[in-house]
Amino acid sequence: LSVHHGPEPILVNFVAGSRGKWKIDRITSVRGDTLPSAGRLDMIEGTELDDNPDTQWSLRGFTSNPRYTNRSELTSLVARQEDLGRPTSLHVALIPIRKRSAWWGLPQDERRIIFEEQSHHVRIGFEYLPSISRRLHHSRDLGQPFDFLTWFEYAPEDSSAFEQLVARHRRTREWSFVDREVDIRLIRD
Amino acid sequence: LSVHHGPEPILVNFVAGSRGKWKIDRITSVRGDTLPSAGRLDMIEGTELDDNPDTQWSLRGFTSNPRYTNRSELTSLVARQEDLGRPTSLHVALIPIRKRSAWWGLPQDERRIIFEEQSHHVRIGFEYLPSISRRLHHSRDLGQPFDFLTWFEYAPEDSSAFEQLVARHRRTREWSFVDREVDIRLIRD
Repeated sequence: LSVHHGPEPILVNFVAGSRGKWKIDRITSVRGDTLPSAGRLDMIEGTELDDNPDTQWSLRGFTSNPRYTNRSELTSLVARQEDLGRPTSLHVALIPIRKRSAWWGLPQDERRIIFEEQSHHVRIGFEYLPSISRRLHHSRDLGQPFDFLTWFEYAPEDSSAFEQLVARHRRTREWSFVDREVDIRLIRD
Repeated sequence: LSVHHGPEPILVNFVAGSRGKWKIDRITSVRGDTLPSAGRLDMIEGTELDDNPDTQWSLRGFTSNPRYTNRSELTSLVARQEDLGRPTSLHVALIPIRKRSAWWGLPQDERRIIFEEQSHHVRIGFEYLPSISRRLHHSRDLGQPFDFLTWFEYAPEDSSAFEQLVARHRRTREWSFVDREVDIRLIRD
């Protein structure tokens, strides 16, 4: 399951430099400051890292329990989504976003309404299952520069579906709270 | 405001040893393993700590956005609660709890129903405002041994009200998900 629920959180480090399993194809700013270019990226789970002289930049986050998903949504997602690491998942997008403090000051009920009833965050993502696997990492509570790091994996033939998915999310009311977004595309070579 | 909402999360370290602003009066296990005894406790905000040879044990967590509180609850709390650090707040309780994985596997809507509609978590705490100040720290996502570290402050004359507050919480359905709880009482001397 690519949505992590129930078991222990996993700390995940995304390390950009000259090493790593994925080749960085491009890094684009969608809103706000971009990130420095680098050749490759690695995803390292479960350990706190020492600084590596080769590292251009690194981001970290943790998988956690569902924050908005209700029972029927969770049941649908679990039934349809597939794991990370499929052999066909040669294309990856890592999309760090930060939301304005106005978002974080909202109570839970108002964030839920914006997130799903107005912006259909879960419903839109569901339409692209199982083609596009996804894992969310929470980053804000670690004092990191982004609030969320979302990792998407898909086969090359699903590239245009993926572009449609991100474009739809970016048109929502939820996204009006995003004040920084970087779009990092990777290729498993 | 003692409930942190909106602004940046604060990383907080609770360090037990021979130093610190608070004298440890007693450490009691409510459920599961206790913590080692120590003389004093300090609360250190905002930095990652190096190991101190004097440290008996330490716990860390972060303040964060509201996870269950709705608009009307948040408005009521903000209007009535008082800050930490009042001169009269000579008594403190630090109560680390861990919840079973069954809790963390529940979707948001079912956790909310247990938390408030069934267990009246916010409503009970509200009855003890402004006497008892409170700050919640999230710990589970840091791979810590507890999920939450709650810090309560009150004047000596509110001690029996505080005992009533914790006793009421412990009788709720929400607390049936708690599989470890330690009750640490401190005195500012």
